[in-house]
Amino acid sequence: MRSIDKDQLRRRVHQIIYEADTPAGKLFDVVLLLLIIISVVAVMLESVQSIHALYGPELQFIEWVITIFFTLEYIGRVLSVGRPLKYIFSFYGIVDLLAMLPAYIDLLFPGMHFLVSLRAVRLLRIFRVLKLMHFVGAGNALVEALRKSRNKIAVFLFAVIVICVILGTIMYLVEGPESGFTSIPVSVYWTIVTLTTVGFGDITPQTPFGQFVSIIIMILGYGIIAVPTGLVTAQFMSKPEGTVVGNTTSCPNCARYGHRDDADFCYHCGAKLNEDEA
Amino acid sequence: MRSIDKDQLRRRVHQIIYEADTPAGKLFDVVLLLLIIISVVAVMLESVQSIHALYGPELQFIEWVITIFFTLEYIGRVLSVGRPLKYIFSFYGIVDLLAMLPAYIDLLFPGMHFLVSLRAVRLLRIFRVLKLMHFVGAGNALVEALRKSRNKIAVFLFAVIVICVILGTIMYLVEGPESGFTSIPVSVYWTIVTLTTVGFGDITPQTPFGQFVSIIIMILGYGIIAVPTGLVTAQFMSKPEGTVVGNTTSCPNCARYGHRDDADFCYHCGAKLNEDEA
Amino acid sequence: MRSIDKDQLRRRVHQIIYEADTPAGKLFDVVLLLLIIISVVAVMLESVQSIHALYGPELQFIEWVITIFFTLEYIGRVLSVGRPLKYIFSFYGIVDLLAMLPAYIDLLFPGMHFLVSLRAVRLLRIFRVLKLMHFVGAGNALVEALRKSRNKIAVFLFAVIVICVILGTIMYLVEGPESGFTSIPVSVYWTIVTLTTVGFGDITPQTPFGQFVSIIIMILGYGIIAVPTGLVTAQFMSKPEGTVVGNTTSCPNCARYGHRDDADFCYHCGAKLNEDEA
Amino acid sequence: MRSIDKDQLRRRVHQIIYEADTPAGKLFDVVLLLLIIISVVAVMLESVQSIHALYGPELQFIEWVITIFFTLEYIGRVLSVGRPLKYIFSFYGIVDLLAMLPAYIDLLFPGMHFLVSLRAVRLLRIFRVLKLMHFVGAGNALVEALRKSRNKIAVFLFAVIVICVILGTIMYLVEGPESGFTSIPVSVYWTIVTLTTVGFGDITPQTPFGQFVSIIIMILGYGIIAVPTGLVTAQFMSKPEGTVVGNTTSCPNCARYGHRDDADFCYHCGAKLNEDEA
Repeated sequence: MRSIDKDQLRRRVHQIIYEADTPAGKLFDVVLLLLIIISVVAVMLESVQSIHALYGPELQFIEWVITIFFTLEYIGRVLSVGRPLKYIFSFYGIVDLLAMLPAYIDLLFPGMHFLVSLRAVRLLRIFRVLKLMHFVGAGNALVEALRKSRNKIAVFLFAVIVICVILGTIMYLVEGPESGFTSIPVSVYWTIVTLTTVGFGDITPQTPFGQFVSIIIMILGYGIIAVPTGLVTAQFMSKPEGTVVGNTTSCPNCARYGHRDDADFCYHCGAKLNEDEA
Repeated sequence: MRSIDKDQLRRRVHQIIYEADTPAGKLFDVVLLLLIIISVVAVMLESVQSIHALYGPELQFIEWVITIFFTLEYIGRVLSVGRPLKYIFSFYGIVDLLAMLPAYIDLLFPGMHFLVSLRAVRLLRIFRVLKLMHFVGAGNALVEALRKSRNKIAVFLFAVIVICVILGTIMYLVEGPESGFTSIPVSVYWTIVTLTTVGFGDITPQTPFGQFVSIIIMILGYGIIAVPTGLVTAQFMSKPEGTVVGNTTSCPNCARYGHRDDADFCYHCGAKLNEDEA
Repeated sequence: MRSIDKDQLRRRVHQIIYEADTPAGKLFDVVLLLLIIISVVAVMLESVQSIHALYGPELQFIEWVITIFFTLEYIGRVLSVGRPLKYIFSFYGIVDLLAMLPAYIDLLFPGMHFLVSLRAVRLLRIFRVLKLMHFVGAGNALVEALRKSRNKIAVFLFAVIVICVILGTIMYLVEGPESGFTSIPVSVYWTIVTLTTVGFGDITPQTPFGQFVSIIIMILGYGIIAVPTGLVTAQFMSKPEGTVVGNTTSCPNCARYGHRDDADFCYHCGAKLNEDEA
Repeated sequence: MRSIDKDQLRRRVHQIIYEADTPAGKLFDVVLLLLIIISVVAVMLESVQSIHALYGPELQFIEWVITIFFTLEYIGRVLSVGRPLKYIFSFYGIVDLLAMLPAYIDLLFPGMHFLVSLRAVRLLRIFRVLKLMHFVGAGNALVEALRKSRNKIAVFLFAVIVICVILGTIMYLVEGPESGFTSIPVSVYWTIVTLTTVGFGDITPQTPFGQFVSIIIMILGYGIIAVPTGLVTAQFMSKPEGTVVGNTTSCPNCARYGHRDDADFCYHCGAKLNEDEA
């Protein structure tokens, strides 16, 4: 194997950051997982008035340490991949960018409250790190089952929404504003609260006829929950086990996962895969 | 193919309005879908006090534009079909009529509040338009599974209602009017709210014995939700996939759907089907 | 077939009251079904203050007409069956007695409020009448599926109750009386309300740690609902369809149902079955 | 079989305490079951203010009788088992210890409120006693099904929590403290309450956009409940029935259960099993 220093280094960084088959790669993923969780917990705690008053500066410090780590990691990811643009505009590329951006924006334009939600986006990065766990196979099976019954679930949700709009309109006419059904949108919201068996109880029917319609909505909701359950169950059972998990090798060129254990080239872009661990 | 002008035109209109295999037919369906959704959203927004005060006339205008379109469409449907009476008294014929009527009645007899609910009926028309989507096959499978377990679901619902009446009467005797259980019908309503795990919380048991009976109701409800789910799942799996979807060709005579791709004649009335697209 | 007048009459009455294969038997069952429903609705309406004030005497009159009919029917059942004692102490024999007793007791000892619940017992008679419907087969399948997973459901419920007692005790210690968790029984009640996803909201955790324990309870409840559902579904599918329904012939001696169509003798007591309809 | 007096006695005690195949062993288990239930009920009743005031001393007395019985039983268990240390540090060994400790600690250091929860630990002992019931096989099947879908359930729960944190953060930003969403942790708590369809109603969205996000959360929760249900159902059906129950013989050396009926030696430590009943 011919070895060019710079290329060798890039491959090494790529292996550590993108894969989890070497000790260094595993350590990196565990550290990343911990940092993500710490940073999200810090954001959550900062929103609690009493904690913010006591530990505000400490939480700010943690925030910055993590942001700097994320920035270095992002640079590493961009430099070590073959086609940086493809990575940058991929789903995880954007998530990685959003994970570090809020702190910088906050520095430039302080007081932009809504950036907090961007920080929560960091949680999505967890799915990237999970590749080192045994859970990926199980997760794939779940996603697969949901994806296959997608069409039926869409029809079902659509029918549920149509039913809720019609029954919500009836409830609005029956109960009226004095019972809390102040408009059709609110009544539809209440109908969905009831049909999904959540039942907050902030708005409740007061008239006998309204309670009768509610009974229909509740029994309907109690019954049709069978539909998504039946769909997903049938899907789970049609191919019960045996999903290909694959190793954690990632293409050095386009950063794709899911290569076969005996793969020499990327199934997507044809680039040569790292053979060091072979 | 012999061509009589008027008959040709009628066939053309029929194809556009009833089918979705030609570009014109597809466009028509998409426009109709948008108009239905816009009109329902308009009805919903009109019921919100603050929006009605600001945009009342605009919403009225939208309402009238849509009503006129629906009227023209209804006339087109009646004229282009072979047996107009059959269409008029079919389920969708009545839904189509109810979709445009409220505006006219409102013009003649203003202030009839309950007509709003008739406007919501328009939503049912969406199912007609959905024929152009891939969802029809999925929807058929759902309806089929529900239809086949109909009998068992009916027995189940009946048993649930009997249980609720008996337990509701017990709760009325145990708790009494001072806890909100003012009459047996209200107690039965509360029992259904609890059994279906909705649990509004506007009425709650106050005595230890009432709470004990509630526990039985809740665990019962938590357990027997298994029954409809089990029924529908078993039905879904007895014939897991493979429902015939068919194309969107509609009989020019009786407006039925579901013809085979190679069908030349309507399976229901024997009328010759449009062959233009063949 | 030898014919003794009295025996012939008894057989005839037996056929009308107990079976539903002759026109007279069917009519009897339909009338009985209506009377049961009317009487239960009357009891329910009587408990509504405003209706009681307006229509009290009318409801009393209906009550008495139905009670007299039920009394005559009960006498007919006792006289026309071979072993009256066996019928009287059977489940339906006691239900039939309880259905007519309250009115008489009310006459002798007026003002015994709790008798209302006995009147609701009448609803159980509906299951007897349902034998004339196609629903019996479906109902049998349901009961069978539940009966077969009985053991597992019992273990499951038992485990749920143990979990609720332990978590309820923890909630009592965490939250304490000031949040509404006034005692361990109340906390256990709240835990069951939460675990079954009913969630009344009359008692809610106020401390962060209490809310954390609640999250565990809720996710637990959301997850383990899978267990009864899975059990019943597996049972439904192990023998999907094909339950023997049988005709509605009832043994003239011991009043059992479920005889085969070609049965000449009762499978339980060996008495000769009515052959008139054969 | 050679017989040494002391060893004989130990074997006899072991048989009574650990097994349920002899009459004495069965009686012991039934008494233990009753004592556990009585002691837990006593702890629950003691927490009710009014009952504590009336029957405080009586409940204290019951508590002490049971504690003494538990102590004797614990000593018996330790002495009659082959490797006492293995038992003492096993799960049930610790539960047995915790079941008797609170009363003694309370004697030495009175007023330690939190010990009440330790008493509830006694309920866990019930699972030990249940070995004498037919339920063990059913319980094993349940645990087995849950254990096998463990990985998938873990992934599912993890995904649910990530979704709740993200949606909770959005709700916090949308609704803000004035609607009760005082901090991100509280908002996440509310999101879980809503997603699991519990819906207490102590915190409810007030703004239209907040209600819209709530609708998404509720429909999501209503839909994804299908996932655990589908998983467990698929697991139940992959090996529908036929779990080995085994007898209640327990190894005299390491106290393990689950030996085959024809086993002569412990499958775990190889010690000779009691053959008296063979």
